[in-house]
Amino acid sequence: MPKKAQPSVPSGPASAPAPATSTAPALSRRRLLGAASAAGATGLALGGTTGALAHAATSDAPPTALSSVGTGRVAFRGTHQCGITTPLQAHGRLVAFDLAPTAGRAEAAALLRRWSDAAERLMDAVGTDSPADGPASGIALDAGPCSLTVTFGFGRSLFARTGLTDRMPDALRPLPRFTADALDPDRSDGDLWVQIGADDPLVTLHALRVLRAEAGEAARPRWEMAGFNRTPGATARPMTPRNLMGQVDGTNNPRPADDDFADRIFVPRGGEPDWMAGGSYAVVRRIRMLLDDWDGTPLQEQEQVIGRRKSDGAPLSGGPDASEDTAVDLEARDSSGRPAIAADAHVRVAAPETNGGAAMLRRPFSYHDGLREDGAPDAGLLFVAWQADPLTGFVPVQRKLDSGDALSRFLRHEASGLFAVPGGPATGEYVGQRLLEG
Amino acid sequence: MPKKAQPSVPSGPASAPAPATSTAPALSRRRLLGAASAAGATGLALGGTTGALAHAATSDAPPTALSSVGTGRVAFRGTHQCGITTPLQAHGRLVAFDLAPTAGRAEAAALLRRWSDAAERLMDAVGTDSPADGPASGIALDAGPCSLTVTFGFGRSLFARTGLTDRMPDALRPLPRFTADALDPDRSDGDLWVQIGADDPLVTLHALRVLRAEAGEAARPRWEMAGFNRTPGATARPMTPRNLMGQVDGTNNPRPADDDFADRIFVPRGGEPDWMAGGSYAVVRRIRMLLDDWDGTPLQEQEQVIGRRKSDGAPLSGGPDASEDTAVDLEARDSSGRPAIAADAHVRVAAPETNGGAAMLRRPFSYHDGLREDGAPDAGLLFVAWQADPLTGFVPVQRKLDSGDALSRFLRHEASGLFAVPGGPATGEYVGQRLLEG
Ligand code: HEM
Ligand code: HEM
Repeated sequence: MPKKAQPSVPSGPASAPAPATSTAPALSRRRLLGAASAAGATGLALGGTTGALAHAATSDAPPTALSSVGTGRVAFRGTHQCGITTPLQAHGRLVAFDLAPTAGRAEAAALLRRWSDAAERLMDAVGTDSPADGPASGIALDAGPCSLTVTFGFGRSLFARTGLTDRMPDALRPLPRFTADALDPDRSDGDLWVQIGADDPLVTLHALRVLRAEAGEAARPRWEMAGFNRTPGATARPMTPRNLMGQVDGTNNPRPADDDFADRIFVPRGGEPDWMAGGSYAVVRRIRMLLDDWDGTPLQEQEQVIGRRKSDGAPLSGGPDASEDTAVDLEARDSSGRPAIAADAHVRVAAPETNGGAAMLRRPFSYHDGLREDGAPDAGLLFVAWQADPLTGFVPVQRKLDSGDALSRFLRHEASGLFAVPGGPATGEYVGQRLLEG
Repeated sequence: MPKKAQPSVPSGPASAPAPATSTAPALSRRRLLGAASAAGATGLALGGTTGALAHAATSDAPPTALSSVGTGRVAFRGTHQCGITTPLQAHGRLVAFDLAPTAGRAEAAALLRRWSDAAERLMDAVGTDSPADGPASGIALDAGPCSLTVTFGFGRSLFARTGLTDRMPDALRPLPRFTADALDPDRSDGDLWVQIGADDPLVTLHALRVLRAEAGEAARPRWEMAGFNRTPGATARPMTPRNLMGQVDGTNNPRPADDDFADRIFVPRGGEPDWMAGGSYAVVRRIRMLLDDWDGTPLQEQEQVIGRRKSDGAPLSGGPDASEDTAVDLEARDSSGRPAIAADAHVRVAAPETNGGAAMLRRPFSYHDGLREDGAPDAGLLFVAWQADPLTGFVPVQRKLDSGDALSRFLRHEASGLFAVPGGPATGEYVGQRLLEG
């Protein structure tokens, strides 16, 4: 797997208009991979430095040279589904659907076939999806695919609905309750989950409307959330994105080039259950940020809460010369002998070292839905974490964070979902076929 | 005025990654100006072909050569406020504030001074706005200004609150009720209106949070709406944007190069009231689209409803060889003798010819806030129309549309505002100073 993650493709031309992109040195390449997201590199889906590396392990299609935000194109078929190691796009929609009361396994299978066909067609050439061809309005006409990805997941409730409880993965057992949870059931869970990402909002919404129309009477939307990341080219060079607290977020993600990356993120061939080979589990949490409280907190305290510098994401254990890439040293002490990274700093409490090696790939979108009734911003993170097993990923880490994380007083977990995301479809297959027809 | 709108600045380098931008021929230049918006050219704030032309009339600052989405920079000071002829950005936030019950003219004046200072600083260098400098969280750190604009307007209610009713413009009299209105008062009107636009969402939100913090106890947000347009570079060449019905939208806008552009859009020097010289009136309507009905309507009927082709925006009066730039011919008949553009087609009913010359500059953002309770998408247009006087702009046109527009059965007007947007501030001045200290 690590071998496959480092194919010897030449670096394609960079898609981001920022001048630094196409000459990315080793260091910023590493950072890009770490982030699985780098704002400035979004759109480098195949062929760009980042995209080729990040997605090659998951794609059957040969890399294509790309030259702009619009022409970024990601392969739908492959060992893994798209949208997991794909660099983060500028726009995202997360949607859950529930099967209709009358629908069962056959309807679910037919739906996933229709959805897979539509997703493949749109990801290849969304801008030619003619308004005469179908029900949706051609809002993406003229646009390139803009690195569109469509990713499908199955919730626990799907298995009873389709008479497949005997094939339900252990890993889909409900997440434990955390003390800080204040979850809205109407915006949690769901039979089917769809993650749509693209660098253009109209492309994202066109895909959403096509998929919704394809659902027809078989399934209806349960909840929908809108997220975003930086616009490609907003920064002078590709960078790990910032979240709405202003932190550089994504630095210490597992990297596709790491030896244990695939083991941590994907269910192995021969794993349990067999239909999940090449798949992954997505934990989705809508985490509101108490931004008014956060903005009222002095910078130094904000930095202690995370354990990294606000300006550049460098660990507080690294001294003034550290950079984002400096390794975190949880043992380091400051001049007065106190731990440089506080006992309750987010990066300490969340680190694999603190959690018996537990790790996940975080691939979030920010959200900002305007004003709440209380006048505070309804804003935060659509946190999406990917792992081979939530019990060796999200669960132990969130358990630790729940009790000991200095960040938690600025957060509210408002919705939650856990979805089994099957492996990518082979030619002729649809997503989930190995479950639904297996 | 028309002279000023065509300065002899050299075309700066294009900011959009699309190859066609910097070599824009006369035809597409015309289209860009017409749209005041061209998706692919967003970010060409000053110095790019479009931006220089569109904004030069409103700016005191010399054009700057720009080279990327991030570095697009718009001047805050000038004859007119920014954000009117500025090419449409990819992200927008519209926010209304109400003055605190205890606040009066002095507090309003102090607030507008703080806001003007902040807007100027952010529009110049948002990415260096240090988190240590103030309350906001530095979410825009590292980003270029991304063509940020901040535009301030005054609602009718402000004048009583500040004891200035004798200086209230006639043009601010309440809009008439239209039969199709279903307006939500909580999302309508307001003492103060702020329009924020930028090509990056974090830049937009950083500006929003800084302005909110600067409001302090003097004013609190009344409503907030989020909108978007295409990401720069999503299309191969700069194009008039599409709205969420899939229509090319903005084609027949007045163009800054038109002889009567300034007369139609801006209050002249010596106009009434004097403090509005160089100003304009913004009509803001939140117009929901019944997208499920629309998507179920056959393409040909959709085209009849507007009077233009869906694929490229060409008028139906022009025959198969027409393009977006072909002039609309309201007299033309098809082979069976019927009007090529139907009696109730939107472009006929809205055209200046039908309305005694009434015209406005439409500069909208799309919105898509997810699912409504009834399962339909909460999506449509944040319609913003600019004119020297709503009585010779929006009002007569909307009156005609209200009774005779085929499009109206697919629309719901859900919120409304009318704001006096004073001229741009001169050096040392703040926006609205001529009213508040005049
Ligand atoms: C809105 C909520 C959250 C915010 C703002 C946030 C922010 C951050 C930031 C700024 C970092 C440091 C940079 C980096 O390595 O990415 C970080 C690291 C991390 N976070 Fe979070 N986080 C949030 C929620 C969570 C949750 C819910 C989990 C998992 C349960 C989590 C797990 C991690 C992990 C594993 C790391 C890497 C630690 C390391 O190995 O250095 N975070 N987070
Ligand atoms: C969601 C609501 C609306 C949609 C989807 C819409 C869409 C369109 C489209 C596709 C065009 C043709 C292309 C162009 O010239 O821009 C157009 C033209 C126009 N619209 Fe609308 N429109 C809407 C609401 C309004 C409203 C409320 C007004 C003013 C009261 C208005 C005034 C105009 C005008 C003046 C034109 C140009 C007509 C001409 O001179 O050819 N529109 N609109």
